Amino acid sequence: MNEETERFPILQVTEQDTNRIEDAVVREYALTIFLNNQELVTLFCSPTNLEYLAVGFLFSEGLIKGKGDIKEIVVDVQRGVVQAETETGKGRLATSGGGRGAFFHGAPDARGQRKVKSEIEISPHKVFAFMDEFVQRSELFKATGGVHSAALCDTEGILVFKEDIARHNAIDKVFGECTLKDIPTDDRIVLTSGRISSEILLKVAKRNIPILISKSAPTNLGVKLAQNLDITLIGFVRGRGMNVYTHDWRVATDGK
Amino acid sequence: MNEETERFPILQVTEQDTNRIEDAVVREYALTIFLNNQELVTLFCSPTNLEYLAVGFLFSEGLIKGKGDIKEIVVDVQRGVVQAETETGKGRLATSGGGRGAFFHGAPDARGQRKVKSEIEISPHKVFAFMDEFVQRSELFKATGGVHSAALCDTEGILVFKEDIARHNAIDKVFGECTLKDIPTDDRIVLTSGRISSEILLKVAKRNIPILISKSAPTNLGVKLAQNLDITLIGFVRGRGMNVYTHDWRVATDGK
Repeated sequence: MNEETERFPILQVTEQDTNRIEDAVVREYALTIFLNNQELVTLFCSPTNLEYLAVGFLFSEGLIKGKGDIKEIVVDVQRGVVQAETETGKGRLATSGGGRGAFFHGAPDARGQRKVKSEIEISPHKVFAFMDEFVQRSELFKATGGVHSAALCDTEGILVFKEDIARHNAIDKVFGECTLKDIPTDDRIVLTSGRISSEILLKVAKRNIPILISKSAPTNLGVKLAQNLDITLIGFVRGRGMNVYTHDWRVATDGK
Repeated sequence: MNEETERFPILQVTEQDTNRIEDAVVREYALTIFLNNQELVTLFCSPTNLEYLAVGFLFSEGLIKGKGDIKEIVVDVQRGVVQAETETGKGRLATSGGGRGAFFHGAPDARGQRKVKSEIEISPHKVFAFMDEFVQRSELFKATGGVHSAALCDTEGILVFKEDIARHNAIDKVFGECTLKDIPTDDRIVLTSGRISSEILLKVAKRNIPILISKSAPTNLGVKLAQNLDITLIGFVRGRGMNVYTHDWRVATDGK
């Protein structure tokens, strides 16, 4: 019931042929930690070892000093909730002073998100060519191995390219430029080096992007949201192969 | 001044020899966004395109709908602050209901963090062997390509192994098990598949871990914290090569 992976039907595409197969995708799970009856944080995680995760998080944040501080930990796997009770009674994340508050992130909330409307298509040949150019452009990655990149493309090529140590920042930088420079995002394509979690998928859906292409893996929530929001999700573009997880009618395989 | 990388002297180690070279490490920068004079969030990012990042973030979080909502954006690169003024006057992150609040994360705050005290050493041979076993253990990664792993080792082998879609969760799961099962962490070693940012370094420092080994790259703040907190930081363990960024006296190269 609380499996680490979920299987989806996908279209596996190479330069030579296409195959409909089943693929295992890693599960993404939202765990909300309550400390002494106060909501503390929601972590996006794999749905295993939730008690260890909660205790490790509380320690890392300085909210417990050891096992002795824990009075009770109750995990409700169905609801995605951990209730922790501690001796100290503290219930807030310590934020450091000087304008360096907590790192904050919107929880994925697909309610009210409109479906993407677009009839554009892309050929596998173009996906491979875009990814080649995309990888080539990543100078910072080549120098340091430590960053993610993201790009906005039309069906001809890359329009905006950005890098960042965090995959979500790279995408926000691309779209931030689009906002400030009035670059339209309808009927366009996003490339990313990073994993496709629900958060990334929603960022892209908000810009009405119909095709999202990643070098890496999606999560199950990423796949489900792409399915529901009519986004073509392509992952694992490596060498001359790729996986199309959703809405593969936008991938023009010419009956291959 | 606001470069994307910083150069550090490192010890490059292979099975055959060692070399003292300089290596470029990606810079990690903390950007705090103020929206209408209220502190909203601190993002850990690469120090480029900060205006685009702020605007993209505000849009992703639903705090602006477009360029027209922005009255003014002022970036103070020195202080790591963006001041955004919007028409709507909203100044808080929308959190969805139902216990799915914002994703929250402690900012790296090294103040008061004690230096790690440990005399343990590790041979390059053992680092390579540990990483081989570590990669082998990652069944979920092999199945899905979508997760990170972390492990606690002593000088003989892996003691605790955990996986998660997020690299920081994998480490919190390892240490959470240590807390609940009274597994000591002094004089022990942590392996991770993920990048070493300041946040990861501080998690490890809090457990008094003297040696941190990663398959991936560190950030410049990760390297600096490791230097200051007397932690041996080893990165890019791939094939039969690795980079020792700090405190290489714990790597027993036998005068090679």
